[in-house]
Amino acid sequence: MKKNEKMNSGSRLKIIPLGGLEQIGLNITAFEYEDSIVVVDCGLSFPADDMLGIDLVIPDVTYLKENINKVKGFMITHGHEDHIGALPYVLREINVPIYATKLTMGLIENKLKEHNLTNCTKRKVVKFGQSINLGQFRIEFIRTNHSIVDAAALAIYSPAGIVVHTGDFKVDYTPIFGDPIDLQRFAEIGKKGVLAMMCDSTNAERPGFTPSERTLSKTFDTIFAEHKDTRIIIATFASNVDRAQQIINAADRFGRKVVVEGRSMVNIIETATNLGRLNVPENTLIDIEQLKNYPDEKTVIITTGSQGENMAALSRMASNMHKKISIGPRDTVIFSSHPIPGNEKAVTNVINELFKKGADVIFQDAHVSGHACQEEIKLLYTLVQPKYAIPVHGEYKHLKAQARLAKGLGIPKDNVFILASGDVLELNNESAKVTGKVPVGAILVDGLGVGDVGNIVLRDRQHLAEDGILIVVLALDGASGELVSGPDIVSRGFVYVRESDELMDEARALLQDTMENLMDRGISDWGKIKTSIKDNLSDYVWKKTKRRPMILPIIMEV
Amino acid sequence: MKKNEKMNSGSRLKIIPLGGLEQIGLNITAFEYEDSIVVVDCGLSFPADDMLGIDLVIPDVTYLKENINKVKGFMITHGHEDHIGALPYVLREINVPIYATKLTMGLIENKLKEHNLTNCTKRKVVKFGQSINLGQFRIEFIRTNHSIVDAAALAIYSPAGIVVHTGDFKVDYTPIFGDPIDLQRFAEIGKKGVLAMMCDSTNAERPGFTPSERTLSKTFDTIFAEHKDTRIIIATFASNVDRAQQIINAADRFGRKVVVEGRSMVNIIETATNLGRLNVPENTLIDIEQLKNYPDEKTVIITTGSQGENMAALSRMASNMHKKISIGPRDTVIFSSHPIPGNEKAVTNVINELFKKGADVIFQDAHVSGHACQEEIKLLYTLVQPKYAIPVHGEYKHLKAQARLAKGLGIPKDNVFILASGDVLELNNESAKVTGKVPVGAILVDGLGVGDVGNIVLRDRQHLAEDGILIVVLALDGASGELVSGPDIVSRGFVYVRESDELMDEARALLQDTMENLMDRGISDWGKIKTSIKDNLSDYVWKKTKRRPMILPIIMEV
Repeated sequence: MKKNEKMNSGSRLKIIPLGGLEQIGLNITAFEYEDSIVVVDCGLSFPADDMLGIDLVIPDVTYLKENINKVKGFMITHGHEDHIGALPYVLREINVPIYATKLTMGLIENKLKEHNLTNCTKRKVVKFGQSINLGQFRIEFIRTNHSIVDAAALAIYSPAGIVVHTGDFKVDYTPIFGDPIDLQRFAEIGKKGVLAMMCDSTNAERPGFTPSERTLSKTFDTIFAEHKDTRIIIATFASNVDRAQQIINAADRFGRKVVVEGRSMVNIIETATNLGRLNVPENTLIDIEQLKNYPDEKTVIITTGSQGENMAALSRMASNMHKKISIGPRDTVIFSSHPIPGNEKAVTNVINELFKKGADVIFQDAHVSGHACQEEIKLLYTLVQPKYAIPVHGEYKHLKAQARLAKGLGIPKDNVFILASGDVLELNNESAKVTGKVPVGAILVDGLGVGDVGNIVLRDRQHLAEDGILIVVLALDGASGELVSGPDIVSRGFVYVRESDELMDEARALLQDTMENLMDRGISDWGKIKTSIKDNLSDYVWKKTKRRPMILPIIMEV
Repeated sequence: MKKNEKMNSGSRLKIIPLGGLEQIGLNITAFEYEDSIVVVDCGLSFPADDMLGIDLVIPDVTYLKENINKVKGFMITHGHEDHIGALPYVLREINVPIYATKLTMGLIENKLKEHNLTNCTKRKVVKFGQSINLGQFRIEFIRTNHSIVDAAALAIYSPAGIVVHTGDFKVDYTPIFGDPIDLQRFAEIGKKGVLAMMCDSTNAERPGFTPSERTLSKTFDTIFAEHKDTRIIIATFASNVDRAQQIINAADRFGRKVVVEGRSMVNIIETATNLGRLNVPENTLIDIEQLKNYPDEKTVIITTGSQGENMAALSRMASNMHKKISIGPRDTVIFSSHPIPGNEKAVTNVINELFKKGADVIFQDAHVSGHACQEEIKLLYTLVQPKYAIPVHGEYKHLKAQARLAKGLGIPKDNVFILASGDVLELNNESAKVTGKVPVGAILVDGLGVGDVGNIVLRDRQHLAEDGILIVVLALDGASGELVSGPDIVSRGFVYVRESDELMDEARALLQDTMENLMDRGISDWGKIKTSIKDNLSDYVWKKTKRRPMILPIIMEV
């Protein structure tokens, strides 16, 4: 045991999740010991349904900013957006080195390039088994399996004890690229005595074992054999390099050429190939422009859009919006994916469109999960035998399900912590408890704006979306305060105006009366005028339509 | 065979679905023979995600209006919203008698009352086995099973042959109320020779047999036995009277009082009880106000909100917004339901909230479907042996799945018709083909407005929802055309203005320049001024924010 790993009866380790416990995504956790902080992951999340117009969500890192001198680096477990996606935003304020395995770093570097951050960001590629010393911490990267290559768990050695953070993982005894999860190392560390484990909960509700990625090889063979006469189009997650590898292998076995379509898919396949994470047999990949030179039954298209995303390649094909590929009866479309919760309807819509165009659509049994089911979670607990269990990665119900598993394995109820983002869990070998709260939150990114859309703007967007807007304009004489023009009404998103003459005419007349009444009574206070207009128009519109459009009076002074 | 049922080599029967084939819901089909039209069902559908602010959707019945003299009546298969919900709107234009079974009519009457249509609507309650003669048609109501009591299939006798319309159905050998589906009658009619069958496709992708509603009795017993110490809250579909019956029976067996919560649930339970479709043991039901007089473990609450609907009782309980019931560790909440596609995320959000409040939540295995799976569909086909198969009720992929089943049972490919709404299928014993198209569509209901929100309004709402609105106001002198006030900018839903001073100031300056430039060049045409403002501001905003708010220039003349 190195010097900085010896047990220290003084200080405690603080584990501070800065996001990720109230939603899927936004994974970022600070580990703090005295003057040192290391941060695990830095992910984004996708906007909830009520975040209208928002592109993505990043974590509030105020706590890191306030302790910037302590922060030593980002440890990234794997290359998915919910673990790396916020880096380009957060790095602008917390510019510390990034540590990650090869493919993970490759994907991070793509992002840094896009945001012109390559030159100002220190980064180090870490090998499995290698450790990084940072202040009071040593962090070891341990090989795991997941739906992306080069996924790592972390063993975080601190003077207060060892924390094992699994990242997202599954146990795959027969992975496509590289070796199975390093179960021996988990066991070895477990033997040393582990203070706490933070373990992936995504599939904690599901009994059994997640099947190996390799089981799909047979699935693809069967599908290819049964659809010898059609083109084959396979939609899957852009980042699932192993899946792409298996599709390419199947294509190769069946003598088909492969086209990769969809920007993110093209980028990742290129990165993975350059880094030796994907093996493409010579003359297998062709450019989309070459498709026309091959008969349908000799081609495979790997594409984005497996989640029914509006703008993704597959959706554009299904809705006849794709410039180069159109769907017909000579197509078999395979969804090698499972809808992420919330995307079910969008996916079904795409499936229906594809069927209508005459394609055969296969949307079941061509996917395996990248997350550990109950037996795998139990296996990890049994190897690592942590004193404290801190379920992470998942919705509350998933964390709860893992907490139940942990208790079932004999971890005392009081040693299982379902944390909320911002909780400060202080722990050492004697005890653990939540001792405080740091500021956390979801910062909304809309276009170039980071954080300039907040609750007020969102509430306005929801109001506008629901019933539209009525704008009332009028001009008052600056000197006399008399009405010199208007009130006029302009509406958007309220009713189809051309067929609602009567309603709009009556509303105008009502406002005319309102203004005359106000003028007669000598009222020229703009606030009072606006309130009268709002109240009267709102009542009238509600009575006539049972709708509540936003009403916006604008007064001009001339 | 009656006179009007004899084969007529002259005219053909027309089957014209006026809705329901492009979406779940909106079920309405016209059957036309010479001077007679009968209409089966008259349902609404719920708005798609992109129909912002819309309350519900009803079918366009232009075709019925244009043939009003032929229309003899509405035959309603069962009392679900997607089969009866459009009646109050459609009846205003197509005022013909309604025929339905007892509970179905009870639920329709509730609607008529709400819309003040009771006195002007003719209606007749029909018993199973009974036939209605209407013009050239005779319509027989046949008992089926479904997730609502008194569901009927229809045998539609026309001079061109018999059409069997299953409505929504399942085969339940041990239903809770009433008898199993009348398989003998289906067989008998099949023996006579059936021209076409229109059969429920909802579960056509699922192999096997849907379990009997009665299987849940044991499920509830087990759950009640395992949760002897907590209050039990069960969310289910308001219209599933049999489910309510089983919950009430379980409560009675375990000595618990029952509270019914949620407006639609209360209404339906009352109607069903009055019509003898629900048997409530004396002293079982209590008022919500009496809850406090009983210990938690002696009560059961049946509630709405099983689909995660925002305003439903369970969601209000979960988010602490319910006035009378708050959730805690002494609650077991059961979802006796399955999320309807599109509602998965909303349901999960409610489950997470309930867990966070400490409740135990059971959201699996406490529900059975009300729709026939593959083996039941095959059974019906084998009893009825129709010449033509017309899959109905379901998304396109479901219709497609039933078409595959029908072909597998030996119905020739050319005799299977997947129709689109508006298709006119003309058929007799010799042949069948789509011969034309009638106008159809989805009419949007928003508050009191029926059809006053169309594509333009929806597009505006989407635009407003995405990036908000920038309103530019200015006043021009009516005589000289000179700028006398403005341009001012008012924004809503765009950025948080107080923290975006610089952006808004620059935008104002830009518009000032734009106007000066226009005035210098002597341009006073309002159209040109508006276009210049829109273009310049839009470019500027895009450059600065990568957003495209709606830009609305308003010019006042003073």
